[in-house]
Amino acid sequence: MADRLMQKATEVLQQAGIRMTPQRRVILHNLYHNRNHPTVEELFRQICDNYPGFHSLSTTTIYNNMRILKKHGLVKEIYSHTGITRYDGNIDTHHHLVCKICDKITDCYYPLPLPIAELQAAEGFAVDDVYIEIRGICPSCKENASTN
Amino acid sequence: MADRLMQKATEVLQQAGIRMTPQRRVILHNLYHNRNHPTVEELFRQICDNYPGFHSLSTTTIYNNMRILKKHGLVKEIYSHTGITRYDGNIDTHHHLVCKICDKITDCYYPLPLPIAELQAAEGFAVDDVYIEIRGICPSCKENASTN
Repeated sequence: MADRLMQKATEVLQQAGIRMTPQRRVILHNLYHNRNHPTVEELFRQICDNYPGFHSLSTTTIYNNMRILKKHGLVKEIYSHTGITRYDGNIDTHHHLVCKICDKITDCYYPLPLPIAELQAAEGFAVDDVYIEIRGICPSCKENASTN
Repeated sequence: MADRLMQKATEVLQQAGIRMTPQRRVILHNLYHNRNHPTVEELFRQICDNYPGFHSLSTTTIYNNMRILKKHGLVKEIYSHTGITRYDGNIDTHHHLVCKICDKITDCYYPLPLPIAELQAAEGFAVDDVYIEIRGICPSCKENASTN
């Protein structure tokens, strides 16, 4: 799965005339292998831990590359109720369950069909993407609350 | 509508034992009368313009009050694709159309029914709130693009 995404990313960047630099490769590799919605700072720390020989990276380099990778649809930006920008290497259609107690963000594939064609016609708005964030209490925090 | 919301806000705060200070009153009054999704800085400038005699306010006061007003369901925080936290005085169920060209956020009441009970059962997640952001191109930017 992650290898297929890396292959696709290389092709997408190549077609756009953009080099797959070592920095872009390591950012994507980490995001595609660890689906944990990191902030830029968390991503930086993860890369330092997961790729110990790799030193050509700073949070600024990550910020700058994120703009490019996002523009080409290779990562997604997400904004949970905490107001902190996070990144998602899961570019398939999915939603997020966000726990208001532990702040954990979980990918959710439960189908949530929306009448997008009808909404487009009614609002005159050309829809590219729909972001759905479901906020509440995760199973683990629910259990903790009931046992305390 | 705005007057009804002000009345409700006074009651909610009173029940929670929280004073409706002049600062809270002016923040809510501005948000309920101008449904334009401001950032804290924009809200500060709007209040300076709309309530010229009112000087007992700073962006820090607004930040601090927003936490309280949000906690009691009197305003909503929103996070569009720009990654900037904005506030919404419209606390009724609605969605946001966000234009990726002009960044404008428009309230949308087109019904988007979701199978929340089924999702709750399937994921074991207790749902409080669902945030839906529809991203794309607004009618005005679509028209500009077609005439250029």
